Amino acid sequence: MLGDLNKKELIDLLESQVFGRLGCSVDGETYIVPINYVYRNNAIYAHSGNGKKIEMMRANPKVCFQVDEILDTFRWKSAILLGDFIELEDEERQQVMQGIIHRIMPLTDRPTEQTSHGIKPEEQTNIVVFKIEISKVTGKFETHDITSF
Amino acid sequence: MLGDLNKKELIDLLESQVFGRLGCSVDGETYIVPINYVYRNNAIYAHSGNGKKIEMMRANPKVCFQVDEILDTFRWKSAILLGDFIELEDEERQQVMQGIIHRIMPLTDRPTEQTSHGIKPEEQTNIVVFKIEISKVTGKFETHDITSF
Repeated sequence: MLGDLNKKELIDLLESQVFGRLGCSVDGETYIVPINYVYRNNAIYAHSGNGKKIEMMRANPKVCFQVDEILDTFRWKSAILLGDFIELEDEERQQVMQGIIHRIMPLTDRPTEQTSHGIKPEEQTNIVVFKIEISKVTGKFETHDITSF
Repeated sequence: MLGDLNKKELIDLLESQVFGRLGCSVDGETYIVPINYVYRNNAIYAHSGNGKKIEMMRANPKVCFQVDEILDTFRWKSAILLGDFIELEDEERQQVMQGIIHRIMPLTDRPTEQTSHGIKPEEQTNIVVFKIEISKVTGKFETHDITSF
């Protein structure tokens, strides 16, 4: 059975995952990259080194973000978010960077790296911290029972 | 350590996975959906019901396809493909549909459904079968050792 995820199921999915795929496009060229993220208050928070995706999002801030949980071909959930790329600065940037580190690092077994996220302090200044302010979310699921597929 | 996947590693990744994320864009709006696929002869083969992604790819056949294998934040592989959406017809369409069924169905534990992919014959006629002819592939990986990150 195919169905739509309701609001609670969408938020549960976004909160339970730490990887999503970010899609951006400029002049008809589309680009997708997997990124770590934190979902909070109707926004996706993430960071990235300067590079192609940052350049593209600066040129066209209308982006897509997709998160899923796939067991197999017949059992999956997927959320598709449309939103706007916004670069963060100063204090908000620092707070978000700390939030990302705390969300992502417990998933690894490397406690000695927890304060740095494996990134040297001098490298952190070259990192772009951004949010995607969500304007639209849709989600679909398929269940285990395929007799009604 | 971050690095680039070489050609063999890229092909191994594309052949080992069955889910990828398809990205398309029209008029600056980007859309990503997870799909089952088969990789063969420098192309991605897949199917879909008529819907938003098919309409978008008909409007702008330049698409992006992304495949990854993620263990955790510090151990992953990801391939990004750029290519052109081409709808398949007649005999090629039938052959590809069978190929997709045979590639995807062994992953499930539902042998009684193997001949239909869980899709009734009358529904198969409404399905669009397509390939993405790859024009560019790049791939990156990150390894277990984060001391050099």
